[in-house]
This record gives sequence, C-alpha cells and structure tokens, in this order.
Amino acid sequence: MARAGRRPGPTETREEILAAARRLFAEQGYDGATIRGIAAEAGVNAALLHHYFGTKQQLFVAAMNLPVNPAEELPRLLATPDEQTGERVVRLFLSVWGDARARAPFLALLRSIADNEQAATMIREFLTSAVLSRIAEDRSVPPLRAAAAAAQLVGLVMLRYVLEIPPLATATDDEIVALVAPAIQYYLSP
Amino acid sequence: MARAGRRPGPTETREEILAAARRLFAEQGYDGATIRGIAAEAGVNAALLHHYFGTKQQLFVAAMNLPVNPAEELPRLLATPDEQTGERVVRLFLSVWGDARARAPFLALLRSIADNEQAATMIREFLTSAVLSRIAEDRSVPPLRAAAAAAQLVGLVMLRYVLEIPPLATATDDEIVALVAPAIQYYLSP
Repeated sequence: MARAGRRPGPTETREEILAAARRLFAEQGYDGATIRGIAAEAGVNAALLHHYFGTKQQLFVAAMNLPVNPAEELPRLLATPDEQTGERVVRLFLSVWGDARARAPFLALLRSIADNEQAATMIREFLTSAVLSRIAEDRSVPPLRAAAAAAQLVGLVMLRYVLEIPPLATATDDEIVALVAPAIQYYLSP
Repeated sequence: MARAGRRPGPTETREEILAAARRLFAEQGYDGATIRGIAAEAGVNAALLHHYFGTKQQLFVAAMNLPVNPAEELPRLLATPDEQTGERVVRLFLSVWGDARARAPFLALLRSIADNEQAATMIREFLTSAVLSRIAEDRSVPPLRAAAAAAQLVGLVMLRYVLEIPPLATATDDEIVALVAPAIQYYLSP
C-alpha cells in the first residue's frame, strides 16, 4: 500500500498491482484470481488495472516477468498450420530460451513448481486455460496432443538449459530444430 | 563415522556408506566421485563397499533411492530394437512414475536440480555417463537423438506427474503410449 501523506506515482502503482497479482495468483490460482480481486488487493480500481495491463492473461505474464506471452505467441504461430508448423514452434522456444536474461524468470517459475503446490496449481491453470486449450481448439487437435507437444518442449528446455545435458546443450538451434520439429509437427497434426 | 567403543552393525555401515556417497556425489559430481573416495569418507574399505553396493552406478542409484536403475533397465530394454521399442520405453517410464511412492525420490531429485547447481551437475553427469551415452552406443544413434528422447520423457513426467496438466494427468497409460511411443521410436531409430 502507498505510504500515508503521499499519492503514489504511476511506477509505484504498477509495482503495487504486480505485487498484488503475484500474491493473489499464488493464493487463489490462475483461474481463481480475478482482475477485480487483484485491483482491490492493490487498492486501485479495476479500470485502472485494465488500462495498465490489459487482460488477466496479460497481467499474469507481466507479474511473472515472462519475456513473451505464450498465450498470444503460440496461437499466432499456429494460426496458419502447414508442414512448417513444428519448425516454427521449436524455433520460437529456442529463441526465447536462448537469451540467458529472458531465461531467468522461467527458471524462477520452474523452481517454484518444484518447491510448492500453490505455484504448481497457478502455472497448471495458466497453461491449461490460457495456452493449451486455445491451441487445441485453434488447431482442432485433441487437448492431449497439444499437451504432449508441450511436454516435448518443456523437457527440451529442462535438458538443454537447466540440466545442460550434452549434446543437447551444445547442439546448434538448427540441429535441434531438424531433430525435434518432426515430433512437434506429428503432435500438432489433426 | 561409527561411535567409539562399539562396532557398527551392517545396517549402520550401509547407511554410513549411503550418506557418504550422497555427500561426495554432491560435492564432486558423479564423474568426479570414486568408490575409493566414498569408502574412505565412510571409513570402510573399497572391497566392502563393492560387496554391499556393486558398481559406482549401482551405488548412485541406491544413494538417490531410485526405484529402478535406468542405467541397467534402459539398455536392457533397447537391446533388441524393433518397431515396439518406443512403446516399451514409454511403458517402462509410466510404470515407474505411476507408483506414487516410487515417485518421491525422483521429485526430490527434481527439486534439487532446480535449487542448486551441484545437484544439477551430479545428475547431468550420471545421465550422460551412465545412461545416454550407453543408449546412443548400443542403438547406434547419435547421442543427440538419445537426449531428445530423454527430453520427451522428462517433459512427459513433469507435465503428467509434477504439474499434473490435464489431460496428460488424467489420460490412461494406453492413451499416452499410443500418442508418445511413435515420437520415441522416431528418435531412437538410426
């Protein structure tokens, strides 16, 4: 909350909203938390929050410090399905994770998943409601196929960037795309 | 170390060896730690350690409490490659992870990977030296293909058992085998 005797500036307000969002997403999950509730927690009105951050999904991405919004990027990428879809998806993942600075927030998320059930719930709900169900619907594939593609990409990131397993850690993006894109293409084909 | 004035019994000795192994694998990595060094740390001779636990790889599996030894099970499974290889590998993974009690040590490992660099090093070296390089050699596939198959399986386990993403968490083993086995088969085919 703002200190007494002084109106908070826009930066302070943004930070308060983000902190309130992190608290409520953790406590209530992604599905349970609402823009209205987060606004109340931050002591601002919902219209102001919407003005600063847009939708709940966009607020979540900002609160978690994600360098890209998977709920927007992936459906955009999958909008025009063809035989290069697998390749485009793998390239997007590698370009986002290839940047060590951008990687930090994802690693923080990963740690929180392993450490506490609340964080796991929050991320499960975000992935399910905001990402996988949209992909499955847009591509007319069963949700299980979208989830299996996600599993391949999550595992790739774990082994290449977290565990740094050779030769995944030392392979070029092109080598990985050539190898993994066909599997993603297989999962995302109806 | 044993307390003064009393000879340690076999159970105590085993526990001391396992504790010493956990310390040295964490401090020196899987590749760096030696049977001789662990025996010295536990205050026993190397022959006794070997008698109790076998090879370094078997000692590691015992020290980490793993319900199966992937360095033995996977090469055995891949010894007779055919068009059912992908299916056999996926079934082995699901049967091991499907048992909630057996899952606990893996989850502990996963947490330690996310939390500290030493644990990540130890596990990276075990996977690389004891598991992936053997599979790549036995199957005559490039190590990158073995690692990509491992990425698929690690991601599957993360999303099905840790994050519990629907519909991966609720699908039957048969549904998952039908979907994922072709990807594993693709990676493990020369």
